[in-house]
Amino acid sequence: MINQLISKIQLVDKFSGEDIDLISKYLTEDSIAKNDHFLNFGEISRHVAFIGTGLAMHYRLHDGVEIPVDFTPEGEWLAYLSSFSQGTPSDMGIKALEDMRILKLSATNMQLLFQAQPKFMALRSFYTELSFMSHAQHSADLAMLNGKERYARFMKEKPHLINRIPQYYIAAYLGIKPQSLSRIRKESQS
Amino acid sequence: MINQLISKIQLVDKFSGEDIDLISKYLTEDSIAKNDHFLNFGEISRHVAFIGTGLAMHYRLHDGVEIPVDFTPEGEWLAYLSSFSQGTPSDMGIKALEDMRILKLSATNMQLLFQAQPKFMALRSFYTELSFMSHAQHSADLAMLNGKERYARFMKEKPHLINRIPQYYIAAYLGIKPQSLSRIRKESQS
Repeated sequence: MINQLISKIQLVDKFSGEDIDLISKYLTEDSIAKNDHFLNFGEISRHVAFIGTGLAMHYRLHDGVEIPVDFTPEGEWLAYLSSFSQGTPSDMGIKALEDMRILKLSATNMQLLFQAQPKFMALRSFYTELSFMSHAQHSADLAMLNGKERYARFMKEKPHLINRIPQYYIAAYLGIKPQSLSRIRKESQS
Repeated sequence: MINQLISKIQLVDKFSGEDIDLISKYLTEDSIAKNDHFLNFGEISRHVAFIGTGLAMHYRLHDGVEIPVDFTPEGEWLAYLSSFSQGTPSDMGIKALEDMRILKLSATNMQLLFQAQPKFMALRSFYTELSFMSHAQHSADLAMLNGKERYARFMKEKPHLINRIPQYYIAAYLGIKPQSLSRIRKESQS
């Protein structure tokens, strides 16, 4: 799993063997069973994690219904910055849609890592911006595209996820009714 | 203007006199007249800026109508990260709603600054996360609150901006019709 992480971060910046030893020291392996939470509502987020295998979902609750806000698969970083950075109780849940294996980095270890090698701060900016942009794009899509266009965008951006996420979550994520999604899917296949 | 900036960044991290001299060297004073653009559609963003005075608006165009995405007043940083980080043509405009005085930092100078003092990278993360969280909150508000609640949230979060932004922009930002906004405002005053 650490090799996966290394090959990803080497795309962002050049890190030496010493740097890699350093970050490896601060990471902890962990696993999350399907449907278990990485972060619960009301909990303060103390970790970010690199996903080795599996798939996670950020979601909010609206009238008791789970509304997905983001899906994060293997090879990406999982975090809820609002709670992690500010130390506030989470107004969002993060749960595993599949069994997951992760490398966790605690807030404390992140600070130690940044002190030891400030270069790693560039990773934090990089991944935050990436997540920000994807989030902004999704908001713009919800505001400006119709249901069919939103589905087309999802198919284009995340084709590898379409069969790993239950239909009702995809519909809620795209802000369309499950029956509309079925219709759109049928039309797009014909 | 530089003193404004210094007092803001000292809240994020401790910077020495030497650090302050360093960042001062890389900043350029500039001004933008009301209704002029900091960033145009199709342009590649080459700068971020600290706002000394004035107010800017990020907006998208939808069927020729300007849809505000964000408002940034004095004391805050102005950027469009998607274009700035990726070097892609902007799909968003940023224009001045009031005459503005700014301190600009170019992409090149930002890199030089980070090389000279990596500590400044923490600012980039900090401001990106702040902006991310505010954006995520606005998206969640649009998805989950009704018009009246959205207005109440805006009043609570940005009371100092309510009389500086034209009504039709506030309505479009909140995703409600201008006539609904008028009604909501009257109700909330009575």
